[in-house]
Parts: sequence; structure tokens; C-alpha cells
Amino acid sequence: MKKAIILLSGGLDSATTLYYAKNQGYQTSCLIFDYGQRHRREIQQAIKIAKASHSDYKIVKINLPWQGSALLDKKIALPRNRQNIPKGIPVTYVPARNIIFLSFAASYAEAAGAQTIFIGANAIDYSGYPDCRPNFYQAYQKVLNLGLKAGVEGKTIRVKTPLIRKTKASIIRLGLRLSVPYHLTWSCYQGGARPCGVCDSCILREKGFEEVGRR
Amino acid sequence: MKKAIILLSGGLDSATTLYYAKNQGYQTSCLIFDYGQRHRREIQQAIKIAKASHSDYKIVKINLPWQGSALLDKKIALPRNRQNIPKGIPVTYVPARNIIFLSFAASYAEAAGAQTIFIGANAIDYSGYPDCRPNFYQAYQKVLNLGLKAGVEGKTIRVKTPLIRKTKASIIRLGLRLSVPYHLTWSCYQGGARPCGVCDSCILREKGFEEVGRR
Repeated sequence: MKKAIILLSGGLDSATTLYYAKNQGYQTSCLIFDYGQRHRREIQQAIKIAKASHSDYKIVKINLPWQGSALLDKKIALPRNRQNIPKGIPVTYVPARNIIFLSFAASYAEAAGAQTIFIGANAIDYSGYPDCRPNFYQAYQKVLNLGLKAGVEGKTIRVKTPLIRKTKASIIRLGLRLSVPYHLTWSCYQGGARPCGVCDSCILREKGFEEVGRR
Repeated sequence: MKKAIILLSGGLDSATTLYYAKNQGYQTSCLIFDYGQRHRREIQQAIKIAKASHSDYKIVKINLPWQGSALLDKKIALPRNRQNIPKGIPVTYVPARNIIFLSFAASYAEAAGAQTIFIGANAIDYSGYPDCRPNFYQAYQKVLNLGLKAGVEGKTIRVKTPLIRKTKASIIRLGLRLSVPYHLTWSCYQGGARPCGVCDSCILREKGFEEVGRR
């Protein structure tokens, strides 16, 4: 059975990606990061989603000894928006986050003999993070082709981004068809007892569910 | 003053790279990894080298919850060679090691406002690791250009590999000119009280010092 590593945050995009990969016939291993995020609630949700999908999972703890993001530093206020996400890269950007996550996924894939890495990156209904855009993933693929033993030996490890050009609504429609347990997903950056409703992540989620006629 | 992040292992290549960067006028911040390496002696040596060079340093602890390398798993024997390193990628290869190290360096550089990352990768007197070769670094540069906020904003963070095409002897000659404290460097993969003399790393070191007429 073909194996895949899934980067699983606990949010709705990565949960949909996990179920997409399962539906494609992959044996799925989830990689969950505890990187000091203020919304560390998502970690517990990611574990529940991995279990619900009958995937195994590993948690990698990353202690970044520097700051530079509102997601790592509670002293920086999160942007509060009403409807649309402003253009530009917001203060929630974490320096090199997906670059770091993918590097661990590459290591895990190679050690586990998986040929594929799935990441739920999206460049349509997103916060403008540069490491969510298609050309970044094309460049990253080349790094894996050239930098891994697997690549040199002709067993390329591929990074797949099935959601990258979908709207949030079409991601949710796909997920509903695949029976993604969206009640288990967590999106809010604040990470309080209930979603704040005003951070980028809450707004994008709400917009998506509204567009498909669910709340 | 221009700032640089230096990937510092405690070995002679990275120590030379650190002094090279200082000589080029950079304010140097060293990044040291505690990644479960069997030769963790090198970490203490890296700290001494950072201090000797009057650089600041940060240690990142990485707990890889998978194996796949003789440097992480003491049950796998290290290759014992007599003179030359055999062709091919040896069991000491750590899946995606430099990809992971560079990803943290990119995050640190961006958070600290450094424009340059130095890594002492070498593709001449080396163990055949694919993430030490020039075309890998060209590909990685593109990832940083496209995936970082700094890249998008036109403040590209550059990865420099000043030793990549040098022989071990010419690296040591350069280091001697720059007064690198080679007595503080540690190369042996075994990480015992004394260098084993038969691992790839010991052999390459000895060959280099012999060629410059020092032992």
C-alpha cells in the first residue's frame, strides 16, 4: 500500500487533505507540530482527527528560540477583521513555518519509506503567507529531488497540495463528500474556549461554511 | 553592521565558515543543533567555538521521532574505513538533515533581520551526502526567495557556502590564516573520549591536516 505523510494542524484544510489522501488509497501517517502556537488547542484536535481517520500520527515539538510572529507571542495582538482579509502578509506570519514543517515531513517520509507528502496549503482564501503559494511548492519539490537520498536514488518524494487553488467553500464541499469530521477541526488563532470569530482564520472558516449553506 | 546566521556543528568546516564570515565583516549569530546525534560532544565544542569567536549563539533541540541513520541510532555500526571514503551515500546520512537545519536558519535569519546564512557544506572531501552539493543550495535559495516574507518584500536572505568546492586541506589553510581555534573543533562521529580515527569524519580530518603538514 502506498504511504503518505500528512501535515495535520487540526484545522479544516489539513483535515480535508488527510481524508483526500485516504480516499486516494494512501496509508496515512500524520505529522503534528507543537511549535509554541498560541492556539495549541489545535494539537488536541489534530490528534482526534488522526484517530478518527484511523491514521497513525507523530508529534514533533519545536522550540523556536526566537519570536517574530503574533502566533508565537501573545503580546502581539491578532488582527481583528470584520469580513475580508486585508492584502499583504499579516503579523500572524511565522518565519519559515511551512519550510520547517516540510523539512520534518521530508525526513519522516524518507525514514518511513513514504513516497508522498500532503499539505493543505491554499492560495485562494488565505492570509497571504508566501509559503502557501504554488511557485513555492514547485521550488520546494526541487529541493527534495536534489537534497534527499531518495531523490538521488530515483525514488522521488513528492509534495502534493490538492487544495492549493480551491476556494474555502469548495474545500468544504470536497470534505463533506469525504465525510471529514469538521466538528473536530479547530481554526481560531486565539485558541480560547470558543472561536473568537474575528481572526483571519475564523473569518475564512465562517465564509466557507456560509457559502456552502452550513454554519 | 550586516548580520549573518552561521550553522555551527562544532566540526572544522563550520568553525572555518564562522571565522570566514567574521572576516567578511558580518556580525555572527551561531545556530547549534542538538538533534540526538551520537557525537553530542560536538555541541559543547560548538559553544566553545562560538564564545571564542565572540559570536552569540542559540541551541535548537530537535527530537526526531523516527530513526534512519547511524548518527541517530547507536545500534547501527559506523563505517570503519582505512583511507578513502567509499562512493555512495553512507549509513551516517540523516534524512533531510541540512534541509531541516537550513529551515531553522531561515526562520532565525528572518526573525533577527539577518540577510545571510552561512553553512560549511562541502562537496569535495565529503561523505557523499546529497544535501552538501551545489545544485541543492541553488534550489534551496529559490525556496527562500519564494517562501519567506523577506523574499517577497525584496529583502532576500542568501545562503552562502564558501567551502563547497574546496578540498579539506584548502579549508584548513584558509582557517589557519583566519586563526580558527581548531583545537576546539570535534569531528569524530563516535563521540567517545578520543577520536576513533576510522570513521569518515576522522579520516577526512586527518587527510586534511596531513596535506597541510600538520597533525
